[in-house]
Amino acid sequence: MTYCCGILVRDGLVMIADTRTNAGLDNISTFRKLQVFEKPGERAIALASAGNLSITQSVLGFLNEGLRNEETGEIETIMNAPTMFQAAQRVGRAIRMVRSLDGPGLDQDGIKFEASFLFGGQISQRRLRLFMIYAAGNCIECTVDTPYLQIGEHKYGKPILDRAIKYDTTLNDALKIGLVSMDSTMRSNLGVGMPIDIAVMPRGEAKVETNYRIEPGEPYFHDLRERWSAALRKAHMDIPPPPYSGSNVGK
Amino acid sequence: MTYCCGILVRDGLVMIADTRTNAGLDNISTFRKLQVFEKPGERAIALASAGNLSITQSVLGFLNEGLRNEETGEIETIMNAPTMFQAAQRVGRAIRMVRSLDGPGLDQDGIKFEASFLFGGQISQRRLRLFMIYAAGNCIECTVDTPYLQIGEHKYGKPILDRAIKYDTTLNDALKIGLVSMDSTMRSNLGVGMPIDIAVMPRGEAKVETNYRIEPGEPYFHDLRERWSAALRKAHMDIPPPPYSGSNVGK
Repeated sequence: MTYCCGILVRDGLVMIADTRTNAGLDNISTFRKLQVFEKPGERAIALASAGNLSITQSVLGFLNEGLRNEETGEIETIMNAPTMFQAAQRVGRAIRMVRSLDGPGLDQDGIKFEASFLFGGQISQRRLRLFMIYAAGNCIECTVDTPYLQIGEHKYGKPILDRAIKYDTTLNDALKIGLVSMDSTMRSNLGVGMPIDIAVMPRGEAKVETNYRIEPGEPYFHDLRERWSAALRKAHMDIPPPPYSGSNVGK
Repeated sequence: MTYCCGILVRDGLVMIADTRTNAGLDNISTFRKLQVFEKPGERAIALASAGNLSITQSVLGFLNEGLRNEETGEIETIMNAPTMFQAAQRVGRAIRMVRSLDGPGLDQDGIKFEASFLFGGQISQRRLRLFMIYAAGNCIECTVDTPYLQIGEHKYGKPILDRAIKYDTTLNDALKIGLVSMDSTMRSNLGVGMPIDIAVMPRGEAKVETNYRIEPGEPYFHDLRERWSAALRKAHMDIPPPPYSGSNVGK
């Protein structure tokens, strides 16, 4: 399992990913699922992945080594894509390439072709953007109406995002709320686990201000988990007791 | 979609169910999914259902009209079951009966046999118990370690239960927290919706103290939703800002 979220607010972009992978419950490992592509000031891009690890790692391989454009002869990578939209298209193309190579063999073994990606960043002075890219290579883009996207085990961590994330949430608050969302997911699903990788990109700078791995036991995150648990336990206490008793149900 | 939860604490049992059903996104209706079987002082039992409505309604039909026990000749219903365990076995038997009747036809139409139930209550001075019964007719019982069970769209509403429900939570708090869990689910999934049916049974009384339908716009539940949203938005404000910046990631 995996949980990743990307939050795109007025001030910038936050990407958060866990690192747990499992091939069955009895085979649990740690793999990085958040990749950063950066040439500070020129481009800053992060890619978070969920799904079959062999697929997502192969996609990453093609994005790093490049796929040849038959029309122009150019070897196309993330680092030489002219725009974020075209870079997202390249992720889609890499997914389709992996599907054409590995799909039939996976099919034969009854393994579904599962992969999804969050892909966000900024190239030169263009707009900071965030995309979600599906297993078919198609994508959607994050907008101001719902300023976040999620992949993987997204349900446990969605209520807090739905309620607390607005487009004008500060970048620091977006990171904090994203970590709460991650914590809610880890608390309820053992398939999502520490360490946590985060990337933070302020809008307009085309650089990754924060590229950080939060290890188990790290004091701030431990404190955040404790405080959030206490706040949740406490939050319902301020709500008056339910007034319902007896029956209003027709017999 | 459906969301139901049952919370079994020291003081008693709370059962909560939504009422939305959908056959596709374009065919949404309201059906009661929480049924009460009661002879006050002698037995108080509630059954909440999720899954295919034709299956769950047929199960209910057999539980009301009874299935003949070939050994004893008795017509077995919920109302004449001698213990909660035997009553739960009867729910399982009714599920298997529906499967034997409707399963082959559903199979032919490619429709999965989906049904699950929460089944809780007390018979005379026996123990108040809560069971979850699966589509195969097998069941598990709720214990003090995890004093709640959920069926249907359970993930959105699980984080608050995981954190706030303990075996010594009061019955009124259990109801309140259950309503918060329901609210979180409705907020994130349109397939779960008002009105909400609730049943509350204090331990030891074998009666349903509260058998209530909460309609849309009902003032207390509206206030609970507003207060909970505000509390969630506020809860993260007391957490200090994340101290992460720069990079601790090896290049």
